Amino acid sequence: MTIEKPVIIGVGMIPVGEHWKLSLRDIAVEALLNAMDDAGVERVDSLYVGNMISGSFIEQENLGALIADWAGLGNVPAVKVEAACASGGAAVQEGAKAVMAGLEDVVAVVGVEKMTDAWPSDATRYLAYAADADWELFHGASFVALNALIMRHYMNTYGYTEEDLALFAVNAHANGAKNPYAMFKGPIKVETVLKSPYIADPLKLFDASPVCDGAAAVIITTQEKAKELGVPREKWVEVAGMGRAIDTINLANREDLLTLKAAKIAADRAYRMAGVEAKEVNFFEVHDAFTVMAALSLEALGVAKKGEGAKLAREGQIAVDANYPIQTMGGLKSRGHPVGATGVYQTVEAVLQLRGEAPEGIQVPNAEVGLTQNIGGTGSNITVNVFRRV
Amino acid sequence: MTIEKPVIIGVGMIPVGEHWKLSLRDIAVEALLNAMDDAGVERVDSLYVGNMISGSFIEQENLGALIADWAGLGNVPAVKVEAACASGGAAVQEGAKAVMAGLEDVVAVVGVEKMTDAWPSDATRYLAYAADADWELFHGASFVALNALIMRHYMNTYGYTEEDLALFAVNAHANGAKNPYAMFKGPIKVETVLKSPYIADPLKLFDASPVCDGAAAVIITTQEKAKELGVPREKWVEVAGMGRAIDTINLANREDLLTLKAAKIAADRAYRMAGVEAKEVNFFEVHDAFTVMAALSLEALGVAKKGEGAKLAREGQIAVDANYPIQTMGGLKSRGHPVGATGVYQTVEAVLQLRGEAPEGIQVPNAEVGLTQNIGGTGSNITVNVFRRV
Repeated sequence: MTIEKPVIIGVGMIPVGEHWKLSLRDIAVEALLNAMDDAGVERVDSLYVGNMISGSFIEQENLGALIADWAGLGNVPAVKVEAACASGGAAVQEGAKAVMAGLEDVVAVVGVEKMTDAWPSDATRYLAYAADADWELFHGASFVALNALIMRHYMNTYGYTEEDLALFAVNAHANGAKNPYAMFKGPIKVETVLKSPYIADPLKLFDASPVCDGAAAVIITTQEKAKELGVPREKWVEVAGMGRAIDTINLANREDLLTLKAAKIAADRAYRMAGVEAKEVNFFEVHDAFTVMAALSLEALGVAKKGEGAKLAREGQIAVDANYPIQTMGGLKSRGHPVGATGVYQTVEAVLQLRGEAPEGIQVPNAEVGLTQNIGGTGSNITVNVFRRV
Repeated sequence: MTIEKPVIIGVGMIPVGEHWKLSLRDIAVEALLNAMDDAGVERVDSLYVGNMISGSFIEQENLGALIADWAGLGNVPAVKVEAACASGGAAVQEGAKAVMAGLEDVVAVVGVEKMTDAWPSDATRYLAYAADADWELFHGASFVALNALIMRHYMNTYGYTEEDLALFAVNAHANGAKNPYAMFKGPIKVETVLKSPYIADPLKLFDASPVCDGAAAVIITTQEKAKELGVPREKWVEVAGMGRAIDTINLANREDLLTLKAAKIAADRAYRMAGVEAKEVNFFEVHDAFTVMAALSLEALGVAKKGEGAKLAREGQIAVDANYPIQTMGGLKSRGHPVGATGVYQTVEAVLQLRGEAPEGIQVPNAEVGLTQNIGGTGSNITVNVFRRV
């Protein structure tokens, strides 16, 4: 059986930031309605919500019902998908799979997280729920500390410096400065990163993505239905490949701290399903929650050899006009990382690039194929999606 | 395109109870491995986890990675599905849809909840996250209080008494007493319910399901793959119909407090997909988190007319050997209600009934078709699944 690949026909989002005057339902509904407007649809058959941790942050679960109800979608099926910080990427996959299963024609996917309603110390605690509660969190390891461990090990093993890794943040901010939906619109220098305070040595404030609020949405359907709905073909972006894989939830059991094995496996699946190789991909939206994760991701995706991810940044190969553009809209570092929403933001950004609708200065020329990679935990649950112009 | 319906080829569970010596990962893995043993498979392609609220109860999210890792499944895709107390039913649907999408052959679904590690007062608070945090919880409404409101309104509107609704609890306990996996194995009388303390008038302790721990699992695949794996045909149970729908998340916006509209719509979809009518269904595992919900469910599923759900209990029509057997293994009331796991327990129980493997005294004779109905929130997110002997 040949499986027809679904297409994304509409995208929407709100600027990432500290939205103290808006609630989770407000921002989710705004992103969703923006996407429906963009697609020109007035109803959808089903809703998937990507969200990591609204129970802890705002004492609200059951987001499927909450958002579908508040958006006025009627009595549709609606469910939340959670894979820690990869919840957004996983929700896009579940939405696409629902279309492929043939039970639902037009599916909406919303990624949303409202993080600024909690005390910052609580946010740090909640984020650590993505790690192993019994083996890591209980012993006092924060999520930042675990990533600092990986960063130190990467630097020691391959001889990189803090300056080398800072280049990923500099690239992200340079691009994010041109994205009106980014949280931080100020370009930074290597010195900005180096002078920022240590959160967990060697990881500094500017190596890390921010605590923030955000919501993004996409509308997915079959090619047949897209035609029937009269959505202009220039707007279609194919969900060409999808991969997802897990690795050990705690770092102690990991075969190798410096290999994102789950990303490798997820990428292999996504490339195979899409029928493309890494070198045919025009841009990569990777999960730079921490600068070192951008380096490791480039290696796992087959863009750089093992140990050479950070070299790409040093050689200037990750800029929008270079060979391997990454974080073209600012990435998690500058656009922001509203955790459960991130994978959907990446998807929206990939669609805009492939449609040629990215903001001036950060449009990848003639982009045909784009990839998004979304990491949950310290690499324990990773999604890779490949998108293609139709 | 004709869609081939997936089949369940293996089921597993652990007894519901207060498992203070076991962690969430322990019970989830045990149920999962039991299901894999039952199916005779040594590996699966993917894992779906039904869970409502592990972040709040045990400070652990990312259950997909946690459970797949701990069960030794390798680097499979693994994700959590949440729809409040309907998380289990929704996870079964997502697992079946993954098979139907053609991307994964053998899918495992685990429902799990570990509720007894929190203080009881915290459990009450966490469960209310299924309601509307801003419109209900914030103003002091607990989940029990909201259901008491519905119960009082049902009694007032149709002239039922507390005795009438108690009959649902009596039936559940009579059946659960014969189920080795049930939490409460003691039969009760109407007086037991009536003499139990009020939690929220008119709702008494014995109208409500317990806080508890539990895990259940099923293995789903295509009929082709089931054949290839050599699973004997007597073991196959078809996922014949699936429906899911939402209603307003808060009661204040509900058109009618006494109609489970989401259940009606979900049931219509499930019946249509299965090609059966309510009268062809041999037993109904409904969501009796509170006795009144059993009555309303029977009405929404088309088994009783509006306002006559409780009449069925009064007329003795809900027993295992009567016309409309419900809660054949004890239901949420007696088997127990580990919230995110419940929908998967219902599925396991339906499979055992259809295979003719239910315990002595509670086997529905010649059961061909069974239905499970799983409610999230106060009726805001409901799944209905129809299962059939192959």
